[in-house]
Amino acid sequence: MTLSAFDHPWLSGLFEDKPMADIWSADKQMAHMQSFEAAWSRALGKHVVGDETIGETAARAIESMNVDLGDIRAGLAIDGVPIPRMVGQMKAAAGDDAVSAGVVHKGATSQDVVDSALALTLRDTSMLIAGRMMELETALKALEAQFGDRPMMGRTRMQAATEITVADRVQAWRIPLAAHLTRLDQLRPRVELVQIGGASGDRKALGEAANAVVTDVAADLGLTATHKAWHAMRDGIAEYASFLSLVSGTLGKIGQDICLMAQQGIDEVRMSGGGGSSAMPHKQNPVLAELLVTLARFNAVQVSGMHHALLHEQERSGAAWSLEWMLLPQMAQTTGRGLSAAIDLCARIERLGAAD
Amino acid sequence: MTLSAFDHPWLSGLFEDKPMADIWSADKQMAHMQSFEAAWSRALGKHVVGDETIGETAARAIESMNVDLGDIRAGLAIDGVPIPRMVGQMKAAAGDDAVSAGVVHKGATSQDVVDSALALTLRDTSMLIAGRMMELETALKALEAQFGDRPMMGRTRMQAATEITVADRVQAWRIPLAAHLTRLDQLRPRVELVQIGGASGDRKALGEAANAVVTDVAADLGLTATHKAWHAMRDGIAEYASFLSLVSGTLGKIGQDICLMAQQGIDEVRMSGGGGSSAMPHKQNPVLAELLVTLARFNAVQVSGMHHALLHEQERSGAAWSLEWMLLPQMAQTTGRGLSAAIDLCARIERLGAAD
Amino acid sequence: MTLSAFDHPWLSGLFEDKPMADIWSADKQMAHMQSFEAAWSRALGKHVVGDETIGETAARAIESMNVDLGDIRAGLAIDGVPIPRMVGQMKAAAGDDAVSAGVVHKGATSQDVVDSALALTLRDTSMLIAGRMMELETALKALEAQFGDRPMMGRTRMQAATEITVADRVQAWRIPLAAHLTRLDQLRPRVELVQIGGASGDRKALGEAANAVVTDVAADLGLTATHKAWHAMRDGIAEYASFLSLVSGTLGKIGQDICLMAQQGIDEVRMSGGGGSSAMPHKQNPVLAELLVTLARFNAVQVSGMHHALLHEQERSGAAWSLEWMLLPQMAQTTGRGLSAAIDLCARIERLGAAD
Amino acid sequence: MTLSAFDHPWLSGLFEDKPMADIWSADKQMAHMQSFEAAWSRALGKHVVGDETIGETAARAIESMNVDLGDIRAGLAIDGVPIPRMVGQMKAAAGDDAVSAGVVHKGATSQDVVDSALALTLRDTSMLIAGRMMELETALKALEAQFGDRPMMGRTRMQAATEITVADRVQAWRIPLAAHLTRLDQLRPRVELVQIGGASGDRKALGEAANAVVTDVAADLGLTATHKAWHAMRDGIAEYASFLSLVSGTLGKIGQDICLMAQQGIDEVRMSGGGGSSAMPHKQNPVLAELLVTLARFNAVQVSGMHHALLHEQERSGAAWSLEWMLLPQMAQTTGRGLSAAIDLCARIERLGAAD
Repeated sequence: MTLSAFDHPWLSGLFEDKPMADIWSADKQMAHMQSFEAAWSRALGKHVVGDETIGETAARAIESMNVDLGDIRAGLAIDGVPIPRMVGQMKAAAGDDAVSAGVVHKGATSQDVVDSALALTLRDTSMLIAGRMMELETALKALEAQFGDRPMMGRTRMQAATEITVADRVQAWRIPLAAHLTRLDQLRPRVELVQIGGASGDRKALGEAANAVVTDVAADLGLTATHKAWHAMRDGIAEYASFLSLVSGTLGKIGQDICLMAQQGIDEVRMSGGGGSSAMPHKQNPVLAELLVTLARFNAVQVSGMHHALLHEQERSGAAWSLEWMLLPQMAQTTGRGLSAAIDLCARIERLGAAD
Repeated sequence: MTLSAFDHPWLSGLFEDKPMADIWSADKQMAHMQSFEAAWSRALGKHVVGDETIGETAARAIESMNVDLGDIRAGLAIDGVPIPRMVGQMKAAAGDDAVSAGVVHKGATSQDVVDSALALTLRDTSMLIAGRMMELETALKALEAQFGDRPMMGRTRMQAATEITVADRVQAWRIPLAAHLTRLDQLRPRVELVQIGGASGDRKALGEAANAVVTDVAADLGLTATHKAWHAMRDGIAEYASFLSLVSGTLGKIGQDICLMAQQGIDEVRMSGGGGSSAMPHKQNPVLAELLVTLARFNAVQVSGMHHALLHEQERSGAAWSLEWMLLPQMAQTTGRGLSAAIDLCARIERLGAAD
Repeated sequence: MTLSAFDHPWLSGLFEDKPMADIWSADKQMAHMQSFEAAWSRALGKHVVGDETIGETAARAIESMNVDLGDIRAGLAIDGVPIPRMVGQMKAAAGDDAVSAGVVHKGATSQDVVDSALALTLRDTSMLIAGRMMELETALKALEAQFGDRPMMGRTRMQAATEITVADRVQAWRIPLAAHLTRLDQLRPRVELVQIGGASGDRKALGEAANAVVTDVAADLGLTATHKAWHAMRDGIAEYASFLSLVSGTLGKIGQDICLMAQQGIDEVRMSGGGGSSAMPHKQNPVLAELLVTLARFNAVQVSGMHHALLHEQERSGAAWSLEWMLLPQMAQTTGRGLSAAIDLCARIERLGAAD
Repeated sequence: MTLSAFDHPWLSGLFEDKPMADIWSADKQMAHMQSFEAAWSRALGKHVVGDETIGETAARAIESMNVDLGDIRAGLAIDGVPIPRMVGQMKAAAGDDAVSAGVVHKGATSQDVVDSALALTLRDTSMLIAGRMMELETALKALEAQFGDRPMMGRTRMQAATEITVADRVQAWRIPLAAHLTRLDQLRPRVELVQIGGASGDRKALGEAANAVVTDVAADLGLTATHKAWHAMRDGIAEYASFLSLVSGTLGKIGQDICLMAQQGIDEVRMSGGGGSSAMPHKQNPVLAELLVTLARFNAVQVSGMHHALLHEQERSGAAWSLEWMLLPQMAQTTGRGLSAAIDLCARIERLGAAD
């Protein structure tokens, strides 16, 4: 065992989802934070100091700088956030003129940078998930087209009930995906929001330029502007986590059903490429189907913590905020891997319904 | 202690929410189940046996019958569901002609009755919650109007940061309520669905009359018809549970903030009617604010179980379904009580912000 | 649905466990609280006011008084705890002389009464659980003796592996019960502790008599005395909740295995008295086995909340303490019902292993 | 954000615990698995094939082989377990004579290797935790010796109650650590068990040599032998996870208390080296105290999943077993980091109790 199954030297063979891992990688997050700070410098240059050139120059320096992660790591041990050291590096990169002109980070605070970067990460996550859910829908429709008319025993309370068709079973796997796509469309506007609050969340340091700065930074990042900083209102983030778990839960039902269908004596599915056993080479374990169950239960556990993190005290909680950092990235990876595993699993199905 | 704080002889003094308790009462649920069976008899009379009179007669008998709950309880110990005994009682009430004509429960199954009744309960729950969220929004706006301009210390990571106004704090309590109302509007159509599947969920017993029966029963109950039984697709129910916890989580943040504001040495709120202590009569405990924290954590725990219940195997799971019965009613009560307590708490606030 | 499946008009047919419900009943809890206050009066009479008679008189009045629960309920709505009103009633019952002599509740506080009563409830709970675990062990040994030599397919990762015997399967159900009995023996001394702290937990009000009072009250109640009030140290309570869930989890594995064994096509068990279906009278649903799975998942969810309640701030937390009130009674009931259901299930087993 | 805060490029600055990370590292786990296979070869040579030399030769080859992790990772994607590929590599390392003699892995299965290695990892974990708990006890005693007599306001329900001393508060932090040390002593024998079952857990492949093999392998690894394979009985593992969360919960209470004590207006603690803010350089955030709260809530969430994993179906569950792989390593890291952070925090405390 190691600290994360997702990037463990060998467990990752089963758990890793490369595209989702990239979206949540430290490099991508740092790039998002640099994008925020660059947009910030541009907006300050334009609306606060009235010198677009110096803002643009600082922005380009920030975008192209090589961040010293070791220094940021050392700072986090002291500050609990990466930003103070990162700002120090940015000021060095932007140069004294930019700093003295006040176009570097001025009026922003750690949570503005980290949570705006999170909003960008969630946007990328949503697009990956949406694409895969559509891909899975297509795969399930194909299975239904191929095997849907075959007879199958309907099973209620794990007992044989009356005969149904394969289509009846497969539709119960597919229909929730359409609902999830609707949920995602409705949810995205509630999380793809720029976070700008400043020291205590009231944007006071920006004075009259506040709205213009917020509008520009949001536009620059492709996020939505808000009238109020959202950093102490985590309902969007907790809703997003709930969504991730709803999706993995739907996939878990598919996996559990397939595990049950694959039992000797039931034999309602035939798959290629099941897993082997060191003691019983003849076995074909439904590894991917089991994985869907594991991932669903994992997210069903984590979602609880994201709801606890709603108790985000006062203007900014250190404890509740850090709890999200421990939970949300793994939940996204879990849902991502669930989708890629489910798509792979569909491709391995050679028969659904009773054998001839 | 006892089995439920919500109806405990004395804990209920703090935890009970009468209107929500009524919505989830056994009487209300039984009435909903009778409504389903009555609508079912009407639809069968009209579309299956072609005799609206006999369907109507059976429906009225079912609607007006006195259910023997003791008999149903005894049956549940054996069957795990209330319906077999309930159907027996309904057949006796409707009479032999109706039974032999086949207009009593024919083609329906337990989950059709229980889950359609649940959809009606959730509709009532949503209306109560929506009304209270609007009421709470109004109360918070009033507090903002009264105290919003007062200065207050902004606190980040539980440390004094920079001065803000009371409005900044109160807006972070209120804004999520508007988002919750939007969520509820978007969610309701996903759960206010009639459940009709029959033995194995394929509606086969209804033959060609299936769509007409589903349409009529849905219309009769004020629910939406679906092309497919949803009883093995619990994503709507789990989403509803997540919503309940998002709301109680928002209220928990309010409660936690007020507990922190009420500390001696901080003194950012004055309330009337706090709780007393048997050892320190001078104390004024922020009982309602603490309750909001307790309720938020309770729902943050329960929501996990509702996501586990997504792994609803095959055409109907006994185990996953019963798990919902243990969790969802308490989650609804928790959110309901959180809202009534928050509204009450707002009314007790005599000052927000630093004392003069 | 209603607020608690354990005492719901019909769900209780499946969920209720009468002996455990009695142990956690409000009447029993009130009796324990009266016992504490009576012991307290005796100890104060003897060690503080030096008049055993007046202490004894007060104690008898408290033990025999009829408590007005409605009044306590009304007080809880204000105070968040039952004790202030209860003390008021006790003072009336004990009379002015006792009160002015200072032998009624003096120097104690709410948590002393409620948590000492909880310790008594846990003692009763432990004895019921221990007895039932031994009963279940005996029932499983009997099944092993009857069917243990029969061949059975060993199943790993839900796939047929190699042939084992019924004894191999049943031993994996039984052996953990012995470990649970050991755990309970080791755990009981950590929770069967009298709670005495007074206003802020330092027993200051008792002065030099503190140790004598604590020793006598503990002896009178059959609990262990401690050098320090434990009310802000909840590790024993959270450990107890974990134990309850470990037991129900073991039972859940038994239930899940039996559900899998009862599948048509597997047919490794025959039981009497399975549950019927309103649509398929021929079905024999493994209702009790499913119930074991439901109860195990329920406790696996609740245990999380009891660990959150470990964050019991300062000398006494209102919020964390009340959270326990919402969770622990149901966890005990869940474990109790799991054990009675498992014992019942064993008695219904007519065959284990492949049919002849 | 990234997949694990424990080894994230910068979050690890706050979350990483190097000694615990080493104990759970893949290298250490592989070494434990090699130790098991080497002990297995020795025992087979001695008790099954009656040739200690060939067993010893194979054992040394296995102990000293360079494992190709990439190959194992590729195999895990197919098999869901690392062992089939690992056995392939070991056979190559041990040579044809050893393989044909049947002293390489013969009669063992994946779970024997992985779970026996886990038992070794838990042993190392327990020793690290025990040492740190004693270290923390010492640090808390030192704080009590230094500041214990200072007056402090006792706070109940977050309200000023009556004056206590610093010792009263600090003892409530320390006393549970002694209970945790007792729990660990009682728990260790329930998890430091060799796992040997073979294909379906009945040790059948070992024939009459089974007991001798189990005894030798256990002795060789420093674990305890059992009469029955424990791989389908996870109560010890779930109990261990509960213990990890009990400890982090105790630390969370300390952290939460210190966060509350550090508030301006309360000022009951002075610490060195608090965290800075990018917007408010003057701030001293109680970063380590907040971390203790975060870690406690994280484990309180994860423990639920470990209890769900108790539903380990039949002779071996793929899904429930993999869920442990996702949860337990992080729980151990969380408890480890909590302890190191708490020890560090104590060293930074310059004053407890009211300022002079």
